[in-house]
Amino acid sequence: MEKRKIDYTLYLCTDRGLMSSPSLEEAVAEAVLGGAGVVQLREKDIDAREFYELAVRIKKITAAHGVPLIINDRIDIALAVDADGVHIGQRDIPAKQVRKMIGADKILGVSAATLEEALKAVEDGADYLGIGAMYVTGTKEDARLVTMEELKRIRAAVPVPIVVIGGINLQTLEHFKGTGIDGLAVVSAVMAASDVQAAARELIKRWTVAEGRSAE
Amino acid sequence: MEKRKIDYTLYLCTDRGLMSSPSLEEAVAEAVLGGAGVVQLREKDIDAREFYELAVRIKKITAAHGVPLIINDRIDIALAVDADGVHIGQRDIPAKQVRKMIGADKILGVSAATLEEALKAVEDGADYLGIGAMYVTGTKEDARLVTMEELKRIRAAVPVPIVVIGGINLQTLEHFKGTGIDGLAVVSAVMAASDVQAAARELIKRWTVAEGRSAE
Repeated sequence: MEKRKIDYTLYLCTDRGLMSSPSLEEAVAEAVLGGAGVVQLREKDIDAREFYELAVRIKKITAAHGVPLIINDRIDIALAVDADGVHIGQRDIPAKQVRKMIGADKILGVSAATLEEALKAVEDGADYLGIGAMYVTGTKEDARLVTMEELKRIRAAVPVPIVVIGGINLQTLEHFKGTGIDGLAVVSAVMAASDVQAAARELIKRWTVAEGRSAE
Repeated sequence: MEKRKIDYTLYLCTDRGLMSSPSLEEAVAEAVLGGAGVVQLREKDIDAREFYELAVRIKKITAAHGVPLIINDRIDIALAVDADGVHIGQRDIPAKQVRKMIGADKILGVSAATLEEALKAVEDGADYLGIGAMYVTGTKEDARLVTMEELKRIRAAVPVPIVVIGGINLQTLEHFKGTGIDGLAVVSAVMAASDVQAAARELIKRWTVAEGRSAE
């Protein structure tokens, strides 16, 4: 997986609790068919063995479609299944230590909510940033909210790809046109849809149209 | 830390919830002064950053006393702080994968409750086994109980050091004399004591006396 070729336009974060699909494997396959360019496995309430076994199964799907698999928080599970990368937050193992553990080739994503956190993350080796929460969301209720002004400051200051996260859906994505972000990280807007593939496709289409309008 | 020189006689598992000591650092230091030969950091309800920072602090204490620090479950945190080893259960990342991640020199401990699990763990690279739960305990209420007969079968079958865990205290340790185990893994019998150092010392003394009697 060549890091620089990743398409961040639609970045899927999994959440089995939200699914209408019969299995996470099916939801991920559908999302990827719908155009999701990155899949982040984010599962909090399972033991490490279950997370590991799930990651083994999901990696078969993402690898078959040429889409990178990113593991949230558990660097050990990412290493055990040879995932394409890891995503960490401000309350996980520090980015600098994580970069040492995963080496230069694996993708390192870091969540940041302030310009200071964003600059530190890039300095510590982040390949991309997840900026948010942009809106209040049911999937991460304790998240700090990021203003549009802070997002723009971060965008102006960092050279790495940025995805926005937290309450991103067909309505809210319109607010990000012209901000220079690289993609939309979604959880429920895709995971909770009755037709996951169509939901992914529609988000990409609307975002492409919005960006097209802003570029006019 | 030379793996073959480890003294498993008193193996401390931490649990901040049970402590009467003002800090985990103080409890660990006292336990080591009392004779604990291994310290396993086992903390479930904290985020990865807090676990990491705690491990950094605890490692300074164990290293100063020449006692190995073992990290429970989170191989990534063990690698990040360069701990002496890891301990995994049957619901963690499989032992074979863990051995690959940590290399040959780090200590790998595996929990087992049956002869089959014990043999598999050794085959997959375990340096020692934690056998239990021997008794019902408040710190791990869902644990499967191991009979004394099964413990003896495991002892007869595996060449690596064995510590027993689960309800081990001044009373129950008497039941293990003559079984050929290498040590006692304790949580509350030391962590919850008002004088941690004295509790550790007394457990070792009683065990030494019990083993001496059984050797007569």
